[in-house]
Amino acid sequence: MKVIILGGDGFCGWPNALHLSNRGHDVIIVDNLSRRAIDLELEVESLTPIRPLGERIRVWKELTGKDIGFENFTVGEDYDRLLNLIKEEKPDAIIHFAEQRAAPYSMKSARHKRYTVSNNLNATNDVLAAIVDSGQDIHLVHLGTMGVYGYGTAGMKIPEGYLKVKVDTPIGETEQEILYPTNPGSIYHMTKSQDQLLFAFYNKNDKVKVTDLHQGIVWGTQTDETRKDARLINRFDYDGDYGTVLNRFIMQAAVNYPMTVHGTGGQTRAFIHISDTCRCIELALENPPAQDDRVNILNQMTETHRVRDLAEMINGMMGAEIAYLENPRNEAAENELHVANDRFLGLGLDPIKLNEGVMDEVREIAQKYADRCDTTKIPCVSKWS
Amino acid sequence: MKVIILGGDGFCGWPNALHLSNRGHDVIIVDNLSRRAIDLELEVESLTPIRPLGERIRVWKELTGKDIGFENFTVGEDYDRLLNLIKEEKPDAIIHFAEQRAAPYSMKSARHKRYTVSNNLNATNDVLAAIVDSGQDIHLVHLGTMGVYGYGTAGMKIPEGYLKVKVDTPIGETEQEILYPTNPGSIYHMTKSQDQLLFAFYNKNDKVKVTDLHQGIVWGTQTDETRKDARLINRFDYDGDYGTVLNRFIMQAAVNYPMTVHGTGGQTRAFIHISDTCRCIELALENPPAQDDRVNILNQMTETHRVRDLAEMINGMMGAEIAYLENPRNEAAENELHVANDRFLGLGLDPIKLNEGVMDEVREIAQKYADRCDTTKIPCVSKWS
Repeated sequence: MKVIILGGDGFCGWPNALHLSNRGHDVIIVDNLSRRAIDLELEVESLTPIRPLGERIRVWKELTGKDIGFENFTVGEDYDRLLNLIKEEKPDAIIHFAEQRAAPYSMKSARHKRYTVSNNLNATNDVLAAIVDSGQDIHLVHLGTMGVYGYGTAGMKIPEGYLKVKVDTPIGETEQEILYPTNPGSIYHMTKSQDQLLFAFYNKNDKVKVTDLHQGIVWGTQTDETRKDARLINRFDYDGDYGTVLNRFIMQAAVNYPMTVHGTGGQTRAFIHISDTCRCIELALENPPAQDDRVNILNQMTETHRVRDLAEMINGMMGAEIAYLENPRNEAAENELHVANDRFLGLGLDPIKLNEGVMDEVREIAQKYADRCDTTKIPCVSKWS
Repeated sequence: MKVIILGGDGFCGWPNALHLSNRGHDVIIVDNLSRRAIDLELEVESLTPIRPLGERIRVWKELTGKDIGFENFTVGEDYDRLLNLIKEEKPDAIIHFAEQRAAPYSMKSARHKRYTVSNNLNATNDVLAAIVDSGQDIHLVHLGTMGVYGYGTAGMKIPEGYLKVKVDTPIGETEQEILYPTNPGSIYHMTKSQDQLLFAFYNKNDKVKVTDLHQGIVWGTQTDETRKDARLINRFDYDGDYGTVLNRFIMQAAVNYPMTVHGTGGQTRAFIHISDTCRCIELALENPPAQDDRVNILNQMTETHRVRDLAEMINGMMGAEIAYLENPRNEAAENELHVANDRFLGLGLDPIKLNEGVMDEVREIAQKYADRCDTTKIPCVSKWS
């Protein structure tokens, strides 16, 4: 099928572009390279030496003979280019990664809050408006976040997107299924909650087919495709804004930097390996909602862990120290988390679980590129209030 | 108290500015005159001959000796001016009307959807971010809409903002109070639903004091203050985009244009007179939430009516014909609506109810300025799909 990938140069976008191209799909990337521009702003680089997108695409072509298209413009600003691309290419699906995706970055200052809100909401609205404008039947697959849910109630499993509730009415108690009431923990997570309202509206009013994937924290770097050539290597973020917890710990251990646990480390979070992200997106593409279906919401995660347990596991593997630091976030010090992910399992996902074998690869990458690390960029300097 | 009114040149903003100034408050208007620019775009004018804002303010000073400040910039774009204004003026409260407020306009085209989303969400986020940035204790009063609720369930009264629900959990059924699950009927209404998530987040994270007023459809034009001089007259919108149903019917009757009922007219809607809007805003200002309160949500409406009943009432009063037209909106043909508004009543609101005496004034205005009406602008040409 023909797929436009918005944000196809990023940490999730790039391996997904390769994975889908490798699986025989016709892939076109749209990206304004904003993630690379933010590296310049933050004066930090991916631990792995990523190549320019044009080179990445040329190498892929050399290796596989497969073409990946690339258009450089800003989704959410250049509406006409987006609409014209959709009209000309007639994609079967659009995958939407074109959002600012770091919670700490979204909380750094008013400017960062404003950028995140404007960029993310205008991007999502533009994609939806352009799909309607084109008059085409296009399945939109969006990368959401587990963070829209907040962190659950009373040991209850977080369901997939919708919640059954009972409401007292004059004719007695009625049962309804509602969009899970969101409780986002940052401006970034909030924009993903707001995205849900955009999807619900365009789905109701215009019957746009939408799959919204509430993803856990991604770990790992390489996939079968990015591993084919050093010039295809994926990003590895270790800094206090964009680095995600497990990759950060492994990398900190690799450079003998005490692992930065925020608060008590009692936060339980959901995780998924980057290769499973690619498989989930493919499963979502292959299983679009029907014409009259509501927004299709799946939880894209495979396991949950408490942050301090991860730190202790890596301490056991690699002997790294643990530093308990003040938590910059406004969040519960300790929480339980149980998440339903039956739907992806039902579609055939066979998850890659955290184990030393898989983590070894992350460690090898972290060690191989340890000399590229600027340890001054490790602390999270963004504060929630 | 000192109050900044964002959007103080509009249909609700202007009479509120005068009302609060008259009641002894120190008022500063911020407006980019976008509503007047949209008149130019739509090639239609307020039925009433409104004067430039500078003249309005000069006339008010002549009549009352009271100053109203005015800053012309775009809230949501010019963040630095907003922040500097807040830092210099140190307002006790900010009233936020600075949003595109017509559902049909928001649905006209992709451009109008994009403008409404970007304008409204960036405006709301900028105000909240600037309040946090200023470090000041400022009460934000926002004009929301009854339209975030959708139109109710099984004869149940729509509560004020929050809904008690029961959820099954492993430890048994638990009761929670959640933000009322929204069901917006247009892009415009959706942005107000998204605003609610912004308010909830900044309230939780930064303890910003917010009152969100879910207003019904406003009717009437004049208030005690706008009536003081013809040059202070308020807007009267009659066109298919910005005209609201009751004012449109009275005006259509005044120019012998058949009253445009969309669909069966079985839609039940909530209403409030423009003078009561001013009183409600004042009551909200006088009763801010406490430091640790959640967002304070009140239903700002005083009665409900079925659209065809309104048309029949005006037919009885003024002998105007009724034209049943195809409904451009995607909405239920018939609905019940019961709305709780106990909180404003408890604060002392004594509502102006629809009756011939009050409607006579609207009729007089409509008749007085009938020669300014361009009847080609009456039909609603915006379609939902």
